[in-house]
Formats: sequence, C-alpha cells, structure tokens
Amino acid sequence: MNLARRLAAEALGALLLAATVIGSGILADSLTPDDAVALLGNTLATAAMLVVLVLMFAGVSGAHFNPAVSLVMLLAREMSVRDAALYTLSQCVGAVCGAMLAHAMFELPLLQTGDIERSGVAMALSECAATFALVLAILMVRRARPEAVAWTVGLVIAAGYWWTASTSFANPAVTLARTLTATFAGVRPADAPLFAAMQIVGALLALGAARLFAPEKGHERIV
Amino acid sequence: MNLARRLAAEALGALLLAATVIGSGILADSLTPDDAVALLGNTLATAAMLVVLVLMFAGVSGAHFNPAVSLVMLLAREMSVRDAALYTLSQCVGAVCGAMLAHAMFELPLLQTGDIERSGVAMALSECAATFALVLAILMVRRARPEAVAWTVGLVIAAGYWWTASTSFANPAVTLARTLTATFAGVRPADAPLFAAMQIVGALLALGAARLFAPEKGHERIV
Amino acid sequence: MNLARRLAAEALGALLLAATVIGSGILADSLTPDDAVALLGNTLATAAMLVVLVLMFAGVSGAHFNPAVSLVMLLAREMSVRDAALYTLSQCVGAVCGAMLAHAMFELPLLQTGDIERSGVAMALSECAATFALVLAILMVRRARPEAVAWTVGLVIAAGYWWTASTSFANPAVTLARTLTATFAGVRPADAPLFAAMQIVGALLALGAARLFAPEKGHERIV
Amino acid sequence: MNLARRLAAEALGALLLAATVIGSGILADSLTPDDAVALLGNTLATAAMLVVLVLMFAGVSGAHFNPAVSLVMLLAREMSVRDAALYTLSQCVGAVCGAMLAHAMFELPLLQTGDIERSGVAMALSECAATFALVLAILMVRRARPEAVAWTVGLVIAAGYWWTASTSFANPAVTLARTLTATFAGVRPADAPLFAAMQIVGALLALGAARLFAPEKGHERIV
Repeated sequence: MNLARRLAAEALGALLLAATVIGSGILADSLTPDDAVALLGNTLATAAMLVVLVLMFAGVSGAHFNPAVSLVMLLAREMSVRDAALYTLSQCVGAVCGAMLAHAMFELPLLQTGDIERSGVAMALSECAATFALVLAILMVRRARPEAVAWTVGLVIAAGYWWTASTSFANPAVTLARTLTATFAGVRPADAPLFAAMQIVGALLALGAARLFAPEKGHERIV
Repeated sequence: MNLARRLAAEALGALLLAATVIGSGILADSLTPDDAVALLGNTLATAAMLVVLVLMFAGVSGAHFNPAVSLVMLLAREMSVRDAALYTLSQCVGAVCGAMLAHAMFELPLLQTGDIERSGVAMALSECAATFALVLAILMVRRARPEAVAWTVGLVIAAGYWWTASTSFANPAVTLARTLTATFAGVRPADAPLFAAMQIVGALLALGAARLFAPEKGHERIV
Repeated sequence: MNLARRLAAEALGALLLAATVIGSGILADSLTPDDAVALLGNTLATAAMLVVLVLMFAGVSGAHFNPAVSLVMLLAREMSVRDAALYTLSQCVGAVCGAMLAHAMFELPLLQTGDIERSGVAMALSECAATFALVLAILMVRRARPEAVAWTVGLVIAAGYWWTASTSFANPAVTLARTLTATFAGVRPADAPLFAAMQIVGALLALGAARLFAPEKGHERIV
Repeated sequence: MNLARRLAAEALGALLLAATVIGSGILADSLTPDDAVALLGNTLATAAMLVVLVLMFAGVSGAHFNPAVSLVMLLAREMSVRDAALYTLSQCVGAVCGAMLAHAMFELPLLQTGDIERSGVAMALSECAATFALVLAILMVRRARPEAVAWTVGLVIAAGYWWTASTSFANPAVTLARTLTATFAGVRPADAPLFAAMQIVGALLALGAARLFAPEKGHERIV
C-alpha cells in the first residue's frame, strides 16, 4: 500500500511535469514568432512546476519523476532493484499520459510522432552535461541544504534550458513523452535512445563526483 | 469581529489579485504586439502578487481568495458552511472591485463585458487540470512544508498560465471579475459557468487525491 | 556613530536602488524596440536588487530606502522625528547620486530633466494603490514572516511595475531621482509633487489597514 | 586531500558558471533578433546556475568561483596566501574549460578570440560598481542571513546584467573565459586587464564598506 502511494506520486508528478513541458511549449509557440520568447515561457513554466512538484511529493516518494535519478538512488543503495524498476515504469506511464493531457487541452491528436531532429555529438554532450549538473546538484544540496532541493531542481533545469544545446531534457521519461509530440518540445523517436544513454552517463558521472566531494565517513555511506 | 477581519482580508486579497491579473494584462497588451511577451508580464505580475498576498494574509484568513479553495476547506471540515459562504461572497465582491480599480487606473469604463471566447471541451479540461494542480499543491505543501505555501501558490499559477490552454483562471471569483473586462485577461460571461463548474470539479478531484496520499491517521483528519 | 552608520546604509541603498531603476531602463530601452520586453528587464533588475538590498541592510538601518516607509515608521512610533527626517534626507541624496551613477555608466549627462509625462487622475490613483500595496505588505509580513520581508518588497514592486498605470514608483526619493533623467524610467519634474503626495496617501491608508488587521493587544502597539 | 577537494569544487563551479554564461548567450542569440530578449535568457540562466552552485559548494569550498572574492577573503584573513593563489588558479582553469565545453556543445571552435569591444571609462566604472555590489552583498548577507547567500549572489548578478553598462562580468576568471569566445558573451582580450583591475578595485571598496557597517567588536574580526 505504501509502495502503491509512492508509485502514484511518481506517476502523477511525471504526468504534470510532461504536460507542463509540452503544453507550455505549444502555447508559447502559438503566441510568438520569436523562439527565444517561446523558450522563456517554456522555461518559466517548467521550472515553476518542478519546484512545486518536489515540494508536494518529496515526502511521499522522494520526488524523482526521473529514471536517471531513480537509477542513482539504486546505486547509492537507497532503494531496491524492484522499487527502482517500478518507479521507472510509473514515471514513463505518467509522462506518456502527460503528453496526452497536453494534447487534449490544446485539441491536438493525443499521440503524435516527434519530428524535431536533435542528434549528433553536440546533442549527446549536452544531455550528458545537463544530467550531470542536475544529479550532482540534487546529491550535493540534499546533503547540505535539504530544504532547498525543490528550488535547486527547478533552477538547474531553468539554466539547463539555455546553457545546453539540447535544452536539457535530462530525464528519460520526459524524453519518451517528447517523442510522442510533433510540437515545440518534441524530438524524433530515433534520437531518443542516444539521449537516454547520455542522460544515464551524466547521472553516473554525477554520482562519482558527489562521492569525490563527500566520501564515506566510517561505515556511513553519504551518497 | 474576528470574522469581520477575516472577511476583510479575503475581500482585499481578492481585490488586489483581480486588479493585478487585469491591470497587468492591460499594460502588457498596450506595450507589445507579441502575445507571448504580454503573457510573460501578466504571469510575472500575477505570480509575484499571489506570493505576497499569501504571505500577508495567511495568518489572518488563511489566504484563500478563491471560492474553490474555501469549498475544499469546508469539505475538509476546517470551516463552517456559514463562513465558507461569507468567504465566497467577500472574494467575489473583492474581485469585482479589483476589476473596477484596474479599469480606473487605466482610464477605462469601470465595468465592461468580457468579449474573449474561451469555450469547449479543451477549455473545460484545462480549467479542471489547472485547479486540480493548484488545490492539490496547496493541500500537500501546507502539510509537508507550510512555510512554502505562498511560493507554491504563486509558482503553480505561473506554470498554469502556460501549460493549460485557458491560461489557468483556476478561481471562480477571478473568473467573475474577468467577465467584467473587455481586455487581455477577459472572458465572455457566457463562458464563465462552465469555467466555474470545471474549477470545482478540479478542486474536488484534488481533495480526493490529497486523501489518497495521506489518509486519516487514527482519529486525526489530515486533509 | 550608530546613527551615521544607519544613514550611510539608507543613502547607499537608495543609491543602488535608483541606479538600478534608471540604469536598467537605459540598457533595456537601447536593446529592444519592444517596450514590454524593456519593462521585463527593468522589472527583473529592480526586483532582484530590492531583495538584495533588504537582505543586506535590514539589520543595519531597517532597509527603508523610501521616505514613505520612514514616515509610516515615525507614525508607528518606531523612530523619532529627527531620525525620520535624516533618513529622508539620506534617501534623497542617495537616490540623486544613484541617478548620476547610472548616467555616468552609460556616458550620458550626469543630471538631466525628466521628460515623460505621467499625470492625471489615473496616475495619481496608480501611485496611491502601488504604495498602499507596498507598505501594507511590509507591515503585515514583517509581523507574520519577518524572514520573508526582503522577498515581499521585491515581489510587490515587480507586480506593481505591471498592474498599475504608473509602473509603481511608490517611493518619493526614487521619484526625485527619476525627475533627473530623460530616459526610459524618467518623469517630468512637474509631475513629481502629485506622485509624492499620492504615495504618502497610499502609505497612510496602508498603516490604517494594517491596524485594522492587527489592532493593539493590551499595551503593546503592533504596528 | 581536503584542499584538493576544495580546489576541485572551485574549478567545477567556475566551469559550470562560465559554460552557462557563454552557452546561454550562444543559444539566446541564435533564437532571437532582439538583444534584450537574448539578455533575458542569458540573465535567467546565469542567475539560476549561480544560486545552484552556491547551494552545492558553499559547504565544500566556500563557493567563491571568483578571484576577486578569494582576494577579499585573503584580506579578511579567512584564507592563506597559498590557498587564495590556488583558488584563483583553479577558478581560471575551470572557467577556461567551461568556455570550451560551451563551444563543444554548440559545435563551435573550442577556443576563440573575443571580438566585442568593451572599453573606456564607462565600462571601467560599470565593472567597479558591479563588483562592489556583488562583494558587499556577499559580505553583508553572509553575516546577517547566511542561508540567503546563494540567492543573494544570483540576484545581484541578475540585476547587474541590466543596471551596469558592461553587463556585470564582476569576476576575473569569467572575464578570462569571455576573452576566449567570439559569441554574445565575449570581450576582446585587450579589454580584459582593465576589467580585472576595476573588479579588484570594486571588491576592495566593498571590503572597506563592509567594515564601515560592522567594524571589529573586541578582538573578533567581523569581516
């Protein structure tokens, strides 16, 4: 029962996150010819929703909403293999439902095929850097300033939308949802595997870096 | 006397909220031909004012400013039927006065008839989703991180302005005020009943979800 | 000596505030033909600097930077007539120096004559409403959530830049500085007296409202 | 070993900061013809990343990422000459690597020669004012509200991007990185020495001002 509640929180959080990423992209793109203005609206909505979602669900499920984060928590021995797998499944189902909700609100076909090409070495490097920054920020700040984790997640993604060339998907479940929309926030399905792989690489590098900055003290694992 | 003070807080809060929603829409629309830029200004002002209003009045009246929130508090047995009805009345009177204040500041007719069509299934779904997110965020965060509720309210509405197709009215009193303005933030009076109905549906769904995430413990009602 | 330190804090704070208001207006106006985009930059800079200045100087001088606020503190018997007068003088000197600093940084004549007309009943009402909101927010939040006052001041001015027709000067010292610049943030000297008068009216109304929401308890004055 | 960890934190922080400053400038500039919109994106990303970096690394290295800050800490006798020198070196190496990372993500030559002229008295004055505000804010807020330092740093730089004529580099290591990019955030190498010199002057003035506002109490040095 407790696990069911945690999985529901992960699914609902991923749903609202994906609906925000995609929905705000659709609205912004329809209102302006200026892509930077559209990205400002997209950034504002995504970051604001992330802060809210982490505040809401941190005490229920840990507020991952992101298979790369759940993988890191598994490797840090904070969750079991079974729970990490179920978290990932819930996040992916939630994110796909979020894409459908965004499309329904804007009277578009519920499931679409992403058509924006985002490939190549530069995109791969961007996703690795973006996810590295996200996961390292989470691991460092939850230790030093746990009450600030929600703000950290929102801010690091807000920055990521601008400083990386891929606009910082940094989340395999959201990447999956973005393959299902032919709008501003979409991506071609063919590009998704490389994105997800590089996100996992970035997350693993962040776990290593976090251990460098705070290795084990005695028997207690810090990360 | 204490109730009078609470009702005054609800009325003044709803007044300042509605004046901000409508006034910032008028100014933004007059300064730019780009609707996304106008919405950025509208979003920034609304979210900033909401954070301030909740900080100001949470300790006086609970800072609802929203009949959908008062209804949920009634159903959660945190306020009486009489108080919820008086709160709703105060919020509506305040919001209408706020529309008039905004019009007076911009030298426009004090009361107008909204002329922007916002109807159909997509709009209904949007208002339901927007109010669900708002009310669930309030119910979850006031339990887990009460000091962060003011930020939560501002941020969830900032996101809502962009991720929903209706720009997230999410408040029957503000919806009423918006039927009285033929400016950027307005809506046709004929569309208001569906908006208000869907806002209530969204609020009730949020109450149910909040109970799912934290059911009764012993005799204590959590929500 | 202690008073000298407080006056220096008020002067330096008003200097940085006025330089930010005017400097960001000059830069924004030079970079874009879209007045709403310029106002976004102007708003962002002003609000960010206000939060920082209150965090920096609240513990030194109370962080007024505003003769209308010092007047209210005088009426609330929290400072002497002499101190309020010296605060006001320091704020005005600082704000004028801030205008000069902004002009120097942008290679403009150090002192200019404001040339933007901002007059009439609508502007008067706007300044009254803007200052009412600012002062009421300060008085309510410093009582209920003192650690949040810095954010409150920044956010209420950010909202005020958009929801009022006058862009919310809300500060007689900053109004004085703005009569000395013929740039984006300027105002005609002839319009300043009405602005300052309405700011004081708004501040006094806020003091009355704050007392309504929290009257004396026993012998202790709350406001 | 402990020093190595601190130096790694300074290098990684400066890397992520420089990559954000330069990367967000490249993306923003490519998306819009409006320089103020581009600066909004650049500001948002830089400020958000600064808040995150200070939250992450304050407990590890003090989160300077800035030779002007390390110099002030040396003069305040909070670090040794050796450590300040090594901090400065780490910050510069990190910032240069950050420029290279940004270029790699956008498929540009890894090292370039900055070509934007930023010279003259007005620019010198701007850098002095910007760094004065940054360092004074850090020194005052870490004493009065240490938990708010991360926000302070982000906000004072966000304001600085707009209220100064130089967009507030305020950091010799970031200035070095900006000489190595021929993009939106770049600067000519020939202009860098004056920038760095004025940043140091501004930092020293801030140290003096901070001592004015809080001189020694007994034997304890406050700053």
